[in-house]
Amino acid sequence: MSRTTGVPVPTVKYYLREGLLPVGTPTAPNQAEYGEEHTRRLRLIRVLREVGELGIAQVKKVLEAIDAEEISLHQVLGQAHHALGPTQKLPVVSDDLRKAKKDIDRFIKELGWRVSPDAPARWTLAESLLALRRLCGAEGPEIFTPYAEVADRIGAAELSARPEGASRTETVEWMVIGTVVYEAALNALRRLAQEHHSALQFDRQ
Amino acid sequence: MSRTTGVPVPTVKYYLREGLLPVGTPTAPNQAEYGEEHTRRLRLIRVLREVGELGIAQVKKVLEAIDAEEISLHQVLGQAHHALGPTQKLPVVSDDLRKAKKDIDRFIKELGWRVSPDAPARWTLAESLLALRRLCGAEGPEIFTPYAEVADRIGAAELSARPEGASRTETVEWMVIGTVVYEAALNALRRLAQEHHSALQFDRQ
Repeated sequence: MSRTTGVPVPTVKYYLREGLLPVGTPTAPNQAEYGEEHTRRLRLIRVLREVGELGIAQVKKVLEAIDAEEISLHQVLGQAHHALGPTQKLPVVSDDLRKAKKDIDRFIKELGWRVSPDAPARWTLAESLLALRRLCGAEGPEIFTPYAEVADRIGAAELSARPEGASRTETVEWMVIGTVVYEAALNALRRLAQEHHSALQFDRQ
Repeated sequence: MSRTTGVPVPTVKYYLREGLLPVGTPTAPNQAEYGEEHTRRLRLIRVLREVGELGIAQVKKVLEAIDAEEISLHQVLGQAHHALGPTQKLPVVSDDLRKAKKDIDRFIKELGWRVSPDAPARWTLAESLLALRRLCGAEGPEIFTPYAEVADRIGAAELSARPEGASRTETVEWMVIGTVVYEAALNALRRLAQEHHSALQFDRQ
């Protein structure tokens, strides 16, 4: 398995010990057979670790959500999102942050989005709003409206791009990979686009 | 200064010691006066630390870019971007990753974007492409085209939203804050939008 995926043997053993990878079918003492599913799972773990920069505990949570067959696909996406971030615990919830969170909750309600009240992304957005207030004197959450419109279009396109005939596990894997990998890609592209437009605007040569 | 900004005194002292904050005008032994500029700088440091999740060394690099008056605004944006990420050093550049990077370079060239050859976001994008190849069998970098279009529109809007009459320092601060804070906001909004569209698609109730 290590050979197929390029993941070092000690790392594979570590994942097995941590219960991230199911043990294979025993073929002899100290020997086990690993199938296609193991390889796929191992690759997913590496992507979550390297592209998503998740810790072992977070990887575990995402895998558990994928494997929990009793909950709805929508709930799995919610669980995976929770595991994916934000990684940092909020240090202290100040009054200002609580106020910003209230404004964000109202903003999301006005957008008409169906989002669980405890989605961590609400707090991320509240932190961004508070930061902009402190630094730029920005007022309401309406400053995020153009971004919300873009995000809505992206979110709709992504959800409808689900591979045809995908199994439940495949759908969830695809959602998790999409969230992590395309987030990194979108951020990278935005920075490249900023550099490009900065060149056009500030670097006349 | 600690009272105005809510930053604890030991943290302020640490920043002074690390040279992130310039020392104030001495008024007495062990006493110094701090002005508006110090407060503003302190707030910027906190945003970079808390919203951008940057380490002290990275914060230092961004501040140095802001203060380096001899280089062009466009170059400052480039330097700030380099400092902002990706934070993780690439462990080993595999042949697959090098191949993905080549494809990304070609993709960016075809987009007609003016981006420096050593922009770290190129590698981030190459990693995303490689991850998608390994996991989903995705082929060319053209899978990023819809994201590139969105990023281009966002980047153009952001650069043109520069506050009127902003000084050089203010412009750079605004660019750095915009890059970090709106990246967090956009990611949060995208996740909320995904949850919303997942609810619409998978959670009929």
